[in-house]
Amino acid sequence: MSVELFLIMSGIKSETYVISIDIGGTKSAVSLVSLSGQVLRRESEPTRPTERTPFGTLESLVTLTKEIIVQSGIAKESLIGVGVSAGGPLDRETGTLLRPPNLPGWEAVPVKCVFEELLNLPVRVENDANATALAEWHYGAGRGARNIVFMTIGTGIGAGLILDGKLYHGTNDLAGELGHQTILMNGPPCLCGKRGCLEALASGPAIARLARESMMYGRHKRVLALAGGNPNHITATHVVDAAKKGDPFALGILEEAGTYLGVGLANTIMMLNPEKIILGTLVVHAGDLLLTPARAAIAEYAWKRAAERCEIMPAALGDRAQDLAGAALWL
Amino acid sequence: MSVELFLIMSGIKSETYVISIDIGGTKSAVSLVSLSGQVLRRESEPTRPTERTPFGTLESLVTLTKEIIVQSGIAKESLIGVGVSAGGPLDRETGTLLRPPNLPGWEAVPVKCVFEELLNLPVRVENDANATALAEWHYGAGRGARNIVFMTIGTGIGAGLILDGKLYHGTNDLAGELGHQTILMNGPPCLCGKRGCLEALASGPAIARLARESMMYGRHKRVLALAGGNPNHITATHVVDAAKKGDPFALGILEEAGTYLGVGLANTIMMLNPEKIILGTLVVHAGDLLLTPARAAIAEYAWKRAAERCEIMPAALGDRAQDLAGAALWL
Repeated sequence: MSVELFLIMSGIKSETYVISIDIGGTKSAVSLVSLSGQVLRRESEPTRPTERTPFGTLESLVTLTKEIIVQSGIAKESLIGVGVSAGGPLDRETGTLLRPPNLPGWEAVPVKCVFEELLNLPVRVENDANATALAEWHYGAGRGARNIVFMTIGTGIGAGLILDGKLYHGTNDLAGELGHQTILMNGPPCLCGKRGCLEALASGPAIARLARESMMYGRHKRVLALAGGNPNHITATHVVDAAKKGDPFALGILEEAGTYLGVGLANTIMMLNPEKIILGTLVVHAGDLLLTPARAAIAEYAWKRAAERCEIMPAALGDRAQDLAGAALWL
Repeated sequence: MSVELFLIMSGIKSETYVISIDIGGTKSAVSLVSLSGQVLRRESEPTRPTERTPFGTLESLVTLTKEIIVQSGIAKESLIGVGVSAGGPLDRETGTLLRPPNLPGWEAVPVKCVFEELLNLPVRVENDANATALAEWHYGAGRGARNIVFMTIGTGIGAGLILDGKLYHGTNDLAGELGHQTILMNGPPCLCGKRGCLEALASGPAIARLARESMMYGRHKRVLALAGGNPNHITATHVVDAAKKGDPFALGILEEAGTYLGVGLANTIMMLNPEKIILGTLVVHAGDLLLTPARAAIAEYAWKRAAERCEIMPAALGDRAQDLAGAALWL
């Protein structure tokens, strides 16, 4: 459903607002967002999971939220709720973060309860990949489509599935782990404990690892220079930046990662026959350096009549994705 | 929704009937089925796609249908419609078979129009994997589950997806082609034109091919004997039968195919987090000979907390699946 249509049908005017809270491993942000997609205010602060208790972090976010509401001057009646996006795994029903790998020490943290109690507003909680999928669907690259796969490629590979016009969660909220499909049965180890996952072949750290491993063959100058001469400091961003300057070694690494990405997307197309696949984070930065080899692999590994109905595109919301993720939970 | 609940909610009593028509590459069948799942009558005949025009075949099925209705003595008012299952690709909306590989010469055959015209009953058409998925969900191994993957492993590998309690078709009716996910990037050629598809590694013909290819190493006696001494006559059934008698060569082939199957199922679990995966045809025949290696591969290639929520089981309907497939389209 389009945002406008939803607002008309539900009698909600665009002056309705949501507090969007994004809890990340490094930083957390609170923003005041209109349901029509305007970000009015935004504040962020370090999450500091190792220095503060989870409850300390939540209290601090509550203080930030209250300040933002007061500063904005909006009437509390026009605030319909709070949308929280955080790293999974989490229990959506109770709004409890279970043990997100990016928040060490956070175990069974009842985010929904705490925020509802302290803010006196209804709270919805969703894992960040799903919430961003909803945001791209309502406000970004996915507008108007019915079947969408959103995949973000950063430190890990997360995904959210909109199927038949509805977020699909799976049986116990684990659907959409496209980053952990097996691409190479005896491939490199993945942080998840398996081998040969897409994430172990095409995520940011996988690209950096490919670059570091190639060091020993001497094909490395520009990437190494960008990393200040220290191979351990190499990140995927250095590889992308070197490739943008035409460095053949960096281009080769992105071609390899992009090919694996394409095989994973081809499998996704064969399984889900989506209308759009929206790719975030690293793909937005690298663009065609990853998309061109990915598209070539899709042509080789997916059926034409499914592939030609599926648009592969970078995410459109950029920095606004985090803020709109919480709002999208209320559409 | 359970069959009983559906019947109560929609005010339909169990004395309501459907004509189920299954159009297969070799044989076609017409049956009279009650919505509660009883098969009252059934007739089948060779499809003979190379000897008759598509229209000739449809006319013959109409004659068979009329005979069955008359013989059954049921009142025409209690017949709510016709459910047709056939090999894809097909256009569900118009009920047109497009160019099914198992029916050479059938191109854009308007099955729905023809049957509606000649039988004066409403007609629903669905591809056979989807229709059988619905049948297993309503009447068989999938009862009560909300997220089901049905996969049939025979000459090809077809699948149907029930997601959030609804058959998921995808953008242009191509969802669920799990047999054509890539398991080995440089694997053996698949009939679909790609390489390394699950279907090229674990279908009936793939198992027979593995057996034939191993002939040259001399490890073949029992399988070859079952095939009458001619390697070209070896089928997957010979391999399964030899394995059931403990033949180590046949056991090894099924272990290999079962492992590939398990990798494909692990990918499916990571992507869709289903509650049940129901496996038809060859898996029903081979049972644990394929399921044991498949389960071992799932343990290695899928996350435990998704895998332990997913029951992997053989299909339950057996020979009744074809008949109930058409009826399930009316639930």
